Amino acid sequence: MPETVEIFEMGPRDGLQNEKRQIPASEKIALVDLLSSAGFRRIEVTSFVSPKWVPQLADAAEVMAGITRAPGVSYGVLTPNMKGYDGAKAARASEVAVFASASEGFSKANLNATISESLERFVPVTEAARRDGLPVRGYISVVTDCPFDGPTPPASVACVAAALRDMGCYEISLGDTIGQGRPETVDAMLAAVLDEIPAERLAGHYHDTAGRALQNIDASLARGLRVFDAAVGGLGGCPYAPGAKGNVATEKVALHLAGQGYATGLDMDVIGKAAAMARSMRGEKDV
Amino acid sequence: MPETVEIFEMGPRDGLQNEKRQIPASEKIALVDLLSSAGFRRIEVTSFVSPKWVPQLADAAEVMAGITRAPGVSYGVLTPNMKGYDGAKAARASEVAVFASASEGFSKANLNATISESLERFVPVTEAARRDGLPVRGYISVVTDCPFDGPTPPASVACVAAALRDMGCYEISLGDTIGQGRPETVDAMLAAVLDEIPAERLAGHYHDTAGRALQNIDASLARGLRVFDAAVGGLGGCPYAPGAKGNVATEKVALHLAGQGYATGLDMDVIGKAAAMARSMRGEKDV
Repeated sequence: MPETVEIFEMGPRDGLQNEKRQIPASEKIALVDLLSSAGFRRIEVTSFVSPKWVPQLADAAEVMAGITRAPGVSYGVLTPNMKGYDGAKAARASEVAVFASASEGFSKANLNATISESLERFVPVTEAARRDGLPVRGYISVVTDCPFDGPTPPASVACVAAALRDMGCYEISLGDTIGQGRPETVDAMLAAVLDEIPAERLAGHYHDTAGRALQNIDASLARGLRVFDAAVGGLGGCPYAPGAKGNVATEKVALHLAGQGYATGLDMDVIGKAAAMARSMRGEKDV
Repeated sequence: MPETVEIFEMGPRDGLQNEKRQIPASEKIALVDLLSSAGFRRIEVTSFVSPKWVPQLADAAEVMAGITRAPGVSYGVLTPNMKGYDGAKAARASEVAVFASASEGFSKANLNATISESLERFVPVTEAARRDGLPVRGYISVVTDCPFDGPTPPASVACVAAALRDMGCYEISLGDTIGQGRPETVDAMLAAVLDEIPAERLAGHYHDTAGRALQNIDASLARGLRVFDAAVGGLGGCPYAPGAKGNVATEKVALHLAGQGYATGLDMDVIGKAAAMARSMRGEKDV
């Protein structure tokens, strides 16, 4: 039996959040419902953030209410603060996530807070989640390169990762938000983080801006990571990171992993359909 | 339920036949055995042609003897003449195939015969196959463009297709051997062929040399075709067609078809693994 590697589907949230066209909730719901039959164990649906920050996801509650939940699939949402957490809980999210930056420059731009301030905000969220029995995932942005501060010191990533772990995050997703990581820098970053957290509790979240996401996944596989974030159709990007092209495509990662003998258990017919749906949602021609 | 489109896997034969390195039979057998679990209904395994012509496939009998046959999968081979047919029959091929050219220039270069002469050679093969109860598929090369004669008249393709049908071919695969077809030329070619043969008995076999194979598949879907030839990893090319890059990749076609709501029923984990295996057999790095 081949070893399993899990892809955590990011399309509906990280994939769509920066689209300029306001995508109707019905389209988002259709995408999530399609993804629910693809074989994913976890799908990130939306983000309960201020509509001022991410207008695209202002319909978070409506989307969560509209999806048809499949057995065995966890529907996650981002929750930057208690207001977001309350919304997520009311929307019956299966799990929530908090997100910190590994660099001060990106933290300031993306969260309007220092790293410490952002971590403090998450404490009540993670405490409430623990009381409510909701798993919390932690994201860390710009784990190798920051558009404002330059290369990110591996120790900074390890430090933030440890803080998120201490708050109770069951898994830390390490994000190369601007897709500038290289296998060497990813490896050095992982070496530092692994001193704090075992590979089983880490995930790689690599953007494909420079076409190196698969190489960075390989570097992470070599370090023992077995969970990777991706978005069908290669959706996404980052408004605060000029030139960031988007999440690595789920279909690309799945075929690549299979090529190395790992099984993702994803259904090619559904993934292909979802990738086309996602691309058409952002006005791209199916190719 | 989505409509099904079938991909006829060409990798082991059309994909490998032009590789310079003599690939050991054991590697070919491993590829076929892997493909057998991918969900294909038909796999073209090898060609019983003179080793002088295609040295890479001189091990046809050994490969056929070595593969493990899966229930419900048809293992096809090319049989240009009676000697080839006898070899195929002895090797217990599930089906055989004959191949003609739509242009005189390519026929001369590829088969060392005029189109008429090549068709005459196939008559005893198709007669023997009928007696033995073996299905025969017909291929036509250079259906839109010939490297020697220029654009192929659609009427020439229709004429050869009718001849193959009259010989008893259950399906005619229309090959854009050098990958120079365009949706318009494919459409014009199909219009002519469909006057002779219904879409249910046609297949599209498009090479991706110019990156237009998916467009040509779309043009064919619009004309009612529901079978396409492809090779995992985009293997193949043609030694008589300089610059011909190879068969369109099975994984690319499967995702594209799924994107339009068609199901191929292929297993993403197996396809990804087979594509990597195929690429490594021709010395390419997995990407």
